[in-house]
Amino acid sequence: MGKTKKFLTDNYTMLCDFYELTMGNGYYKCGNAEKILYFDLFFRSIPDGGGFAIAAGLDQVIDYIENLHFDEDDIAYLRSRGQFSEEFLEYLASFHFTGDIYAVPEGTPVFPNEPLITVRAPAIEAQFIETFLLLTVNHQSLIATKSSRIVRAAQGRPVSEFGSRRAQGTAAAIYGARASYIAGCAGTACTIADELFGVPAGGTMAHSWVQFFDSEFEAFDKYCEIYPNNPVLLVDTYNVLKKGVPNAIAAFKKHNITKCAVRLDSGDITYLTKKVRKMLDEAGLTECKIIVSNSLDEYIIRDLIHQGAIIDSFGVGERLVTSKSEPVFGGVYKLVAAEESDGTVTPKIKISENTQKITNPHFKKVYRLYDKETGKAEADYLCVYDEKVDDTQPLTIFDPVHTWKEKTFTSYRAEELLKPIFVSGKLVYPRYTTKEIRDYCASQIGTLWDEVTRFENPHNYYVDLSKKLWDIKHELLKAK
Amino acid sequence: MGKTKKFLTDNYTMLCDFYELTMGNGYYKCGNAEKILYFDLFFRSIPDGGGFAIAAGLDQVIDYIENLHFDEDDIAYLRSRGQFSEEFLEYLASFHFTGDIYAVPEGTPVFPNEPLITVRAPAIEAQFIETFLLLTVNHQSLIATKSSRIVRAAQGRPVSEFGSRRAQGTAAAIYGARASYIAGCAGTACTIADELFGVPAGGTMAHSWVQFFDSEFEAFDKYCEIYPNNPVLLVDTYNVLKKGVPNAIAAFKKHNITKCAVRLDSGDITYLTKKVRKMLDEAGLTECKIIVSNSLDEYIIRDLIHQGAIIDSFGVGERLVTSKSEPVFGGVYKLVAAEESDGTVTPKIKISENTQKITNPHFKKVYRLYDKETGKAEADYLCVYDEKVDDTQPLTIFDPVHTWKEKTFTSYRAEELLKPIFVSGKLVYPRYTTKEIRDYCASQIGTLWDEVTRFENPHNYYVDLSKKLWDIKHELLKAK
Repeated sequence: MGKTKKFLTDNYTMLCDFYELTMGNGYYKCGNAEKILYFDLFFRSIPDGGGFAIAAGLDQVIDYIENLHFDEDDIAYLRSRGQFSEEFLEYLASFHFTGDIYAVPEGTPVFPNEPLITVRAPAIEAQFIETFLLLTVNHQSLIATKSSRIVRAAQGRPVSEFGSRRAQGTAAAIYGARASYIAGCAGTACTIADELFGVPAGGTMAHSWVQFFDSEFEAFDKYCEIYPNNPVLLVDTYNVLKKGVPNAIAAFKKHNITKCAVRLDSGDITYLTKKVRKMLDEAGLTECKIIVSNSLDEYIIRDLIHQGAIIDSFGVGERLVTSKSEPVFGGVYKLVAAEESDGTVTPKIKISENTQKITNPHFKKVYRLYDKETGKAEADYLCVYDEKVDDTQPLTIFDPVHTWKEKTFTSYRAEELLKPIFVSGKLVYPRYTTKEIRDYCASQIGTLWDEVTRFENPHNYYVDLSKKLWDIKHELLKAK
Repeated sequence: MGKTKKFLTDNYTMLCDFYELTMGNGYYKCGNAEKILYFDLFFRSIPDGGGFAIAAGLDQVIDYIENLHFDEDDIAYLRSRGQFSEEFLEYLASFHFTGDIYAVPEGTPVFPNEPLITVRAPAIEAQFIETFLLLTVNHQSLIATKSSRIVRAAQGRPVSEFGSRRAQGTAAAIYGARASYIAGCAGTACTIADELFGVPAGGTMAHSWVQFFDSEFEAFDKYCEIYPNNPVLLVDTYNVLKKGVPNAIAAFKKHNITKCAVRLDSGDITYLTKKVRKMLDEAGLTECKIIVSNSLDEYIIRDLIHQGAIIDSFGVGERLVTSKSEPVFGGVYKLVAAEESDGTVTPKIKISENTQKITNPHFKKVYRLYDKETGKAEADYLCVYDEKVDDTQPLTIFDPVHTWKEKTFTSYRAEELLKPIFVSGKLVYPRYTTKEIRDYCASQIGTLWDEVTRFENPHNYYVDLSKKLWDIKHELLKAK
């Protein structure tokens, strides 16, 4: 698809924080450009007090890494800043990514303080990609996490993403639609998200269509004439019960349409949908569905269902596409290790007065431990890169703060979460379709206990450290 | 600049809500494609309870309109949907914008229920551009409005935008930096925003630079060696008062640097900055500035200043770039009139149970009335397109709800806010630089009374209707 290519080859190399360039030039000048560093991308808390987040955005990270280069204009701009040496600018002219990237697959439920991405690369490269990785993973994980909440609240009723007009810019609209689909939304109003990513796009009419004609009935009549195949009529332009629904019924009847829907975008939804359902049924339109949209989120959807509103599907806009209740996914990118010339990996730690902000040092592996009988995920287990979990042997894990709290697994399966994406700058990971990622996401959410997926006071999923990693961390803390 | 062009010619035609295409096909089939419609883009309430918003995003709307076209891939995708007639697809293949667009200049303070943009165009065109116009103006106006609040809270201290990593996607980072600069931010960390729009980009080091070296002093020493010209050292990696500031002072001294700064990104800012200022002054580094960043917004900045924190400038990230406290600017796009074949303009209205949601009908002019003596903006005045305010004559305006509340102006200047941008599809408006827009914005905020610009309970600026417009609106309401 030509369009796909065009968008995906946009060069976002210069979408970096300026300090990545000053530090890069600095590493270069100190003779440290080639020193291998390890960075982890992770987050510290789950938006909206939820029990898990959903990792998303990796596919766009891959595009970015593959397209990474400075063109002549970029070098000219940097030269004009007067801060960078000609040698460094020359280095940048042939800059590309030569390191390794490990990442959790998109659509995976993830938890605080475990790496979603680990980068191993020469100092300049590893530091340089910070901003793009963060903004992409932060944005799409935020929207996927929010969408998953909304989809779960709808209890099986389809949810469509309707928020482009309120999205924070073009990328937020397009990739917001993508992330919401990964997390379980059925479709979007955003046409280009269908063209680029196969997110099913749909939509029928705005209030302006109804206003355009001399009467509401004429607007509905014309629409049914043009689109007899499952038309959706917007019935709240004037008065839902007195005008909108009677006019819709008359139009459906006139065109002998039984597979159809009405959409309500205002008013007391619970009251109206009960009345509307009755009117439709009495008119014999039992197959006519009721779609609702209007400042919805997971809490309102839950309340509507609880109140007995009769709704077949939801359109959710601004509160999904901006994650309005918590519009920031606080992913960070921290140095965790450095490699000596002899290949030794030295762990690094970031201290903070706020103990929540102390990092898990070192180049790590992340295992997810599944119970063999139930198939449910029980804990994530972080260990040093040279450790290996043998899941034919029992494993005892312990709480990293309250270390006397232990749990022993005997019948379990251990799966490594971080997959190699780039090795020595070469992509080694398949490009999954958005639909494949969506299916994977659904299956992975299915491995979580209900206690983790509930909205209120979810169970704290275990993210524990191996004894070796715990010891290294505490030695580093003591040494500071 | 080649890079500029590359980004600005991205074709966002397919970034539309799907219903714009189904309605377009519908208008086409009904023989109404060429019927001239008028739409207003306006908003209903100011984010964060503020007294005014700032219009932004017009320049990107111009790019969009100029690039508007469907390419072969787009047509092929639309054909694959099986909903559109071949005639309509053929029409789309040569589709471009042929109508008129009027808009308030970027950087203008604006108020609820007045048009920021008015579109006059054939039905399909006017309807089709809805989503892009809304998302662009909503996003940039949101960030400009938020940034203006933060800049005003800083009381003259420079504010830099640091939020790319937490922005909702690439466009939110790039155009967020642009909008924040228009509203008064001094600069950004986002490099590409400088390259594309001349927003001054800056930045020095992350915690990782400090962690990289064997000691904090070595990290500072190396940095000062490479960048002796106004280095900014990040002093909170280990311990601000015991290590960071002493090490920074030692490094500045070693390199005989007096023009410099330290940055604090954590801790009790008020306490620390007082101590740090004292330490710097005692070391003779009276010119060394103190920069603060860490989850700041307008309220925290106001409190810090109130508490006596000694701060020279601020870096503001996620709470600015996502407008975290209110991440949605609720602009809407509503049909306000239709033109008959004889040129008569028929006003249209959208009714709602919620009286706040009733639209101001008709093709309108917007005047801003300035007091001749003070130069201050006193009211905005909406009238029908064929009315004209003669500011040599007294003008009496009245509240549109409490109509007995009147005010008469005698010594005033009336300026039309809506400028022609496109006429018959042709751009007739200059392309201002971002810096020019920023200067204009500052001068326009200067025309507002302090009562309008304050944070708490700002004065409700008057947005009134002419007698003629008020009468038309109320006739339409009665007729429904």
